[in-house]
Amino acid sequence: MTAIDELVKLLKKLPGMGEKSATRLAYHLIATDSNFNKALGESISKLQEKIHPCPICGCYTEGEKCPYCDDENRDKTILCVVEQAQDTLSIAQSGVYNGLFHVLGGAINPINGIGPGSLRLKELKERIENGNFREVIIATNPTEEGDTTALFIRQLLSPFENLTLTRLASGIPIGGDLGYVDKLTLARSMRERIKL
Amino acid sequence: MTAIDELVKLLKKLPGMGEKSATRLAYHLIATDSNFNKALGESISKLQEKIHPCPICGCYTEGEKCPYCDDENRDKTILCVVEQAQDTLSIAQSGVYNGLFHVLGGAINPINGIGPGSLRLKELKERIENGNFREVIIATNPTEEGDTTALFIRQLLSPFENLTLTRLASGIPIGGDLGYVDKLTLARSMRERIKL
Repeated sequence: MTAIDELVKLLKKLPGMGEKSATRLAYHLIATDSNFNKALGESISKLQEKIHPCPICGCYTEGEKCPYCDDENRDKTILCVVEQAQDTLSIAQSGVYNGLFHVLGGAINPINGIGPGSLRLKELKERIENGNFREVIIATNPTEEGDTTALFIRQLLSPFENLTLTRLASGIPIGGDLGYVDKLTLARSMRERIKL
Repeated sequence: MTAIDELVKLLKKLPGMGEKSATRLAYHLIATDSNFNKALGESISKLQEKIHPCPICGCYTEGEKCPYCDDENRDKTILCVVEQAQDTLSIAQSGVYNGLFHVLGGAINPINGIGPGSLRLKELKERIENGNFREVIIATNPTEEGDTTALFIRQLLSPFENLTLTRLASGIPIGGDLGYVDKLTLARSMRERIKL
């Protein structure tokens, strides 16, 4: 197997990468500055040596604690539960959230063998028990798996009577067009309509 | 800059990779088996140590000559001129071509400063002079740049009177639908219609 074939085989395992796009990318890399390839290759191969999950929230970090848990200015009484570490980025960048995060590491999906035991749900309960939270925002994806996980968390946290549980609103995206919105989204935005 | 930010910055330089997809890919890689990342990283960083252009045709190879030039069973009297090395793969895989290749390394594009001198056109003329070719198929892309390059090659090779010059047919893709084909393609397939 040549070096190109080998690279194409590896690239094809990346998400959204088929035979054609992997081949195209491999040929692009051959024609690229070799210093760039050295930097990129090094960066990929040493990634996990540098980065590990934060022991508290599960976000990725290079330090002992992640930047969110380590930030004194964040509101320690509000917790946002997400499926994946990268979801914290999107939420932090939206600019309207200044609390802490909790990464589950996925969503309940019995078909793929992901039960509640595979997720960081025990850690979530422990954080609520030992912390001083007033609100938990469940920010799992608006999918069947995310909704199931949200329901599971509602049950899991129901013993904490003073805790407010909320969920991100679903509906028509800003700038969206009713004619192009899928019917499930439209149904949900109708069911969860808000009073003006 | 953290290791993730650094990786995202590098990934963003790849073709078709924006901020979002680079971030998504970086997080995918963090969650991947570290042995895979080591293999991929190594493969990328050492790519150019192993691969170099074939001195005859310009395809990429690990050996002295490329597999096409080295193949005794290929027809040495027909030459297919392409823009990029990866184009040879697509043509070879179509299964209807068994001649040799010549890689130009791009197409004439004065706006981007790519003149005839930047392409392997001198090498093309030399191959025709010293070889025993009866036909040259110009397989540059059906774009403005590819068409300009094809015209330039036609002039370049006009002194060779016994040489047949051809060009890949352009038109409606197989399985295509007239209603969805762009008007330039349709115009071209009309202009270059063939007799039944």
